[in-house]
Amino acid sequence: MAQKMKAAIFVEPNRIVLDEKPIPDVGPLDALIRITTTTICGTDVHILKGEYPVARGLTIGHEPVGVIEKLGSAVQGYQEGQRVIAGAITPSGHSAACLCGCHSQDGAGTKHGFKPLGGWRFGNTIDGAQAEYLLVPDAMTNLSPIPDGLADEQVLMCPDIMSTGFSGAESGKVRIGDTVAVFAQGPIGLCATAGARLMGATTIIAVESVPARMEIARKMGADHVVDFSKVDPVEAILELTDGRGVDVAIEALGRQQTFEAALRVIRPGGTLSSLGVYSTDLRIPLDAFGAGLADQTIVTTLCPGGKERMRRLMEVIASHRLDTRPLVTHRFKLDQIEEAYDLFSHQRDGVLKVAITP
Amino acid sequence: MAQKMKAAIFVEPNRIVLDEKPIPDVGPLDALIRITTTTICGTDVHILKGEYPVARGLTIGHEPVGVIEKLGSAVQGYQEGQRVIAGAITPSGHSAACLCGCHSQDGAGTKHGFKPLGGWRFGNTIDGAQAEYLLVPDAMTNLSPIPDGLADEQVLMCPDIMSTGFSGAESGKVRIGDTVAVFAQGPIGLCATAGARLMGATTIIAVESVPARMEIARKMGADHVVDFSKVDPVEAILELTDGRGVDVAIEALGRQQTFEAALRVIRPGGTLSSLGVYSTDLRIPLDAFGAGLADQTIVTTLCPGGKERMRRLMEVIASHRLDTRPLVTHRFKLDQIEEAYDLFSHQRDGVLKVAITP
Amino acid sequence: MAQKMKAAIFVEPNRIVLDEKPIPDVGPLDALIRITTTTICGTDVHILKGEYPVARGLTIGHEPVGVIEKLGSAVQGYQEGQRVIAGAITPSGHSAACLCGCHSQDGAGTKHGFKPLGGWRFGNTIDGAQAEYLLVPDAMTNLSPIPDGLADEQVLMCPDIMSTGFSGAESGKVRIGDTVAVFAQGPIGLCATAGARLMGATTIIAVESVPARMEIARKMGADHVVDFSKVDPVEAILELTDGRGVDVAIEALGRQQTFEAALRVIRPGGTLSSLGVYSTDLRIPLDAFGAGLADQTIVTTLCPGGKERMRRLMEVIASHRLDTRPLVTHRFKLDQIEEAYDLFSHQRDGVLKVAITP
Amino acid sequence: MAQKMKAAIFVEPNRIVLDEKPIPDVGPLDALIRITTTTICGTDVHILKGEYPVARGLTIGHEPVGVIEKLGSAVQGYQEGQRVIAGAITPSGHSAACLCGCHSQDGAGTKHGFKPLGGWRFGNTIDGAQAEYLLVPDAMTNLSPIPDGLADEQVLMCPDIMSTGFSGAESGKVRIGDTVAVFAQGPIGLCATAGARLMGATTIIAVESVPARMEIARKMGADHVVDFSKVDPVEAILELTDGRGVDVAIEALGRQQTFEAALRVIRPGGTLSSLGVYSTDLRIPLDAFGAGLADQTIVTTLCPGGKERMRRLMEVIASHRLDTRPLVTHRFKLDQIEEAYDLFSHQRDGVLKVAITP
Repeated sequence: MAQKMKAAIFVEPNRIVLDEKPIPDVGPLDALIRITTTTICGTDVHILKGEYPVARGLTIGHEPVGVIEKLGSAVQGYQEGQRVIAGAITPSGHSAACLCGCHSQDGAGTKHGFKPLGGWRFGNTIDGAQAEYLLVPDAMTNLSPIPDGLADEQVLMCPDIMSTGFSGAESGKVRIGDTVAVFAQGPIGLCATAGARLMGATTIIAVESVPARMEIARKMGADHVVDFSKVDPVEAILELTDGRGVDVAIEALGRQQTFEAALRVIRPGGTLSSLGVYSTDLRIPLDAFGAGLADQTIVTTLCPGGKERMRRLMEVIASHRLDTRPLVTHRFKLDQIEEAYDLFSHQRDGVLKVAITP
Repeated sequence: MAQKMKAAIFVEPNRIVLDEKPIPDVGPLDALIRITTTTICGTDVHILKGEYPVARGLTIGHEPVGVIEKLGSAVQGYQEGQRVIAGAITPSGHSAACLCGCHSQDGAGTKHGFKPLGGWRFGNTIDGAQAEYLLVPDAMTNLSPIPDGLADEQVLMCPDIMSTGFSGAESGKVRIGDTVAVFAQGPIGLCATAGARLMGATTIIAVESVPARMEIARKMGADHVVDFSKVDPVEAILELTDGRGVDVAIEALGRQQTFEAALRVIRPGGTLSSLGVYSTDLRIPLDAFGAGLADQTIVTTLCPGGKERMRRLMEVIASHRLDTRPLVTHRFKLDQIEEAYDLFSHQRDGVLKVAITP
Repeated sequence: MAQKMKAAIFVEPNRIVLDEKPIPDVGPLDALIRITTTTICGTDVHILKGEYPVARGLTIGHEPVGVIEKLGSAVQGYQEGQRVIAGAITPSGHSAACLCGCHSQDGAGTKHGFKPLGGWRFGNTIDGAQAEYLLVPDAMTNLSPIPDGLADEQVLMCPDIMSTGFSGAESGKVRIGDTVAVFAQGPIGLCATAGARLMGATTIIAVESVPARMEIARKMGADHVVDFSKVDPVEAILELTDGRGVDVAIEALGRQQTFEAALRVIRPGGTLSSLGVYSTDLRIPLDAFGAGLADQTIVTTLCPGGKERMRRLMEVIASHRLDTRPLVTHRFKLDQIEEAYDLFSHQRDGVLKVAITP
Repeated sequence: MAQKMKAAIFVEPNRIVLDEKPIPDVGPLDALIRITTTTICGTDVHILKGEYPVARGLTIGHEPVGVIEKLGSAVQGYQEGQRVIAGAITPSGHSAACLCGCHSQDGAGTKHGFKPLGGWRFGNTIDGAQAEYLLVPDAMTNLSPIPDGLADEQVLMCPDIMSTGFSGAESGKVRIGDTVAVFAQGPIGLCATAGARLMGATTIIAVESVPARMEIARKMGADHVVDFSKVDPVEAILELTDGRGVDVAIEALGRQQTFEAALRVIRPGGTLSSLGVYSTDLRIPLDAFGAGLADQTIVTTLCPGGKERMRRLMEVIASHRLDTRPLVTHRFKLDQIEEAYDLFSHQRDGVLKVAITP
């Protein structure tokens, strides 16, 4: 095994560079993965811009597809050479949070076992996936073998985009016959649309303004696409639903405007399922909130992780329920990752997601 | 039967007066109740002050205890002379909202069957309970016979205070072993405390500053009472929970301050169950919201109604699980209701709830 | 309006005949529907054979599609001439059962408000739909307007077959990524297959032996079809799932053999969702039950009814999520209903469902 | 540390003897506990009698209270010398079953991650707690520190009896105002009664015939106790509920008779929550099952384990919601364990539970 590897490292705000790092040592519960494909997330752009703080020198990235290079001494049930993915969120499995089913808020090692966003480790609190090798902690909780016949790009959205997007529909408890609105059709919003469709929503209204995204929204399952640059989306959704409103609104952008619009379009007793990463305080308008008396639910969800989640998402792909490959619009070598960041962070050339291959 | 009856009527902001009104006619699905005991709610004070608009001339009040005087021609299963209560919320039973289990947002007669707060009719959209007689719509959905042996004052809290307070714990999905904080210990907050206790919470922290309410909070089930006038309640709750936070926080006041504090004390993955009637926009601080990534749930609940709810609440009383009589601190005749409003709206003399008897 | 109408009447075991009856009077909460299309259910065959007892002289049938002929004096929100359906189950909306969300066990008029199967009235306790006219009780709870553009045959499965079949998946709480087995692919089993697909199951295994049904099972969403006449279905399902078993097994026949097989194929912690109408005691084998320690759930579901359910099912059709027309294999005039019973009860000529038009 | 320890070993059917064994080695994820108090379970008696097969030479027992003697090299968050308990069920935390929240069916190391009863390891598939020392696997998932001030006997019921009993009420989804019947008031049934009370049931009917157990049932929360040796319990429960039946029936014995009676007393739409360990096939009578149309749920639950579960149960004790010490009727030294088995297995002298101290 090589002693050094290439990795995309956060140096300082506005500087992520490809540099060399030692290939990490493998502890008893870890697995070392040789990355075959990874990608860049909107969150990585927040990190790049210094909006979300991480330690200088950290390897970025939390969406790994790869091959098991080496297993920790206590890891059972896997073989070296196996193709695997791990979720963006890598819960320990043994914290109080995990034992409550709240894996993303995993507080392993903390006093009470809960830690906000604690399950998100890759490219946040430990080295991430934009590198030649990735150390996966708690490997038995997190490594999920790729079903035969699925190519890297077919499962590349599973670790984060698809898991997060689907969770918007799941936390919204979408039921057969529901009307659902999804605000913003970036990669996560598109997967939220697909998730709502998969769960049986019969009217899905996507809100977007970029024509290419509007088009792909229909492919992912939207029945209607509202162009918020041309019409007021709240008015448009109320018109499309004949004044009724939606059962579930999914927010997939992270702005006051979409949060508020989502609240305004849910029917009394409806649910606002929020996926966005916000960067300002939010305001709940009194009227949209029914003065607190409208039996509304607002629920936020961080990307669900763990191997069983990954297995289920890959089953969705393997069973042809959904094909997320259209989300991969550009491909780069790891050596070109700075170029990839430049393209992705400026949302140039209709980029949705990039595939990075070491 | 007398042709006229006395009723507490909203004349204009700051004027609710006792006046005469015709005793209402009874439609086929209605029941006419002779009120034997009723009470004044905080919401009625909002109406009095003009903060919550109702039609001039409306009879106020939504907490009836009485005797069936006359049944509509299509009403079956009851007898005249039977002692009954009806909930503050009187769902039709047949709207889309009701058929979804969302009875409080009953939109009977509307196009889609949902109407914000639509289940709240007494003293809001139709004449209310602070009168000698009350017309109960959809009687078969709403009339609940009082179990033998229970006095009026024992069940007087069921129509609203107890139903609302309990729903704070229920919507919060309190489980055995939970830690719960309840912000404000007015009548509803006290019943939320009792509800959390009944559902198995093992640490209940009540927040209040009025000594008499602090004392009754302990009787209703609080393990700790935090005096927010002396300490910062967020700090105090985090200290009491050794930094962990609570599983469920119940807001029972309706202010930005309590809403925000409730959000700040829930653990990652926790639930803020909101009961308060707000009168301003609310702000969600970014940090308290985990930037939208903390798997939090914010749920609001309007008082559940319907006869089955009332039956269950009266069972709580009849089985000695809870005694809400200590909440009744003052008693008035209907003739004295203007005096009662004066006392209650100014929160004088340690008043919690008043009993009004025609 | 004609004074007399034709109706399919249960005379005695093995005799359902078309005869004349008075067109019913319309009470204040009723609606009279002129039937435009109806069908025969497997349950009707049980009635025909005397296996399920009903009163002699009762009009049979519980799957109405029609036009509002006359509305009761207290019915609001509908117009005469409107095209509507009503569910096979017609809950009152106001019983304790309804207020608990348990509409099918509606005990309106009973002491405690629960009655086994109480929501099933048409063709069971009151006159049914195989007639020129049908009286719908509690019309405001039960009448659901047909969306523009949907033909009678498109919505004919909604009142019972589709509602029941879907409920198998719903009560099984099928989730994205689940593996589901459906035992028997008669009309209800086929809709259970479709329901599992709609809710996101990624591996659906249908069990059937009739070639035409096996073929349609694939169209409704089955990934695999096991021919139980050629292989042991338990072994086949365990093989297809590589020994894992299924998350949810749906029983759609009503026999010991299928009930037992369904129990045997669920993974530990799995759910057996039972739709079948049984006619004998059932046996739970100790080993299939994990001696009571396998965290299994067995849940039975009676067809959900009410207008909101019907609205949602028709939305499934209108949104092209599912087309149930292939289930209608034969068409008869009401005058030919005895012939239709003969065909249907003997399962001749590949019949799945018949459409009956007065 | 001593090299040898005493342990209660299964030799052959009807022979459990106290013998010497090596103190086990501690693997990286394990912890070695010095047992301070343990007990004998009904399941151990099944093992003794050869009714439940375990390997010869296995140490029996699954209810440990003790002190951490030695921690595995990878175990963090604990100190040697700490007083702890572990559940009877010791899930790994990382299997597919665990990641689905189905910890008791933990299939760590199996192909698909589910194994029937797989979470039950102590005294079943690995050496158990009736010994001087116990090796706890997956220590970080399973060790729960005992809150200060709680004595061994106060928490002795947490690992199994209380966790199992409570789960009967939890799986039954007992709600405020429910009527609940609990069949059999052995230690688990008594805790089911207490659990139903803690969750807000307002009418709890316990079924038992042993006078001492009938008496303690009332202390644990029963409102009524039916002596099945004197009256038919189904009739008695229907009479007590005025013909309505119960919302939830909990079976805590494991016999056809109690299973069937539990099914017969639930109202339409009710739940039978089964805790018993059965030793024969079960029969579901057609009439009690509503022919499969009564919207019933039958759910079985194996004792929930894991450190968070244990923490919550100990909170119930620490907060004085429940005192399980009255269940400990007899005390023995580990040296007397054969005598303890003799007493316990013959249910002599009013024994409920024994405390065994090494």
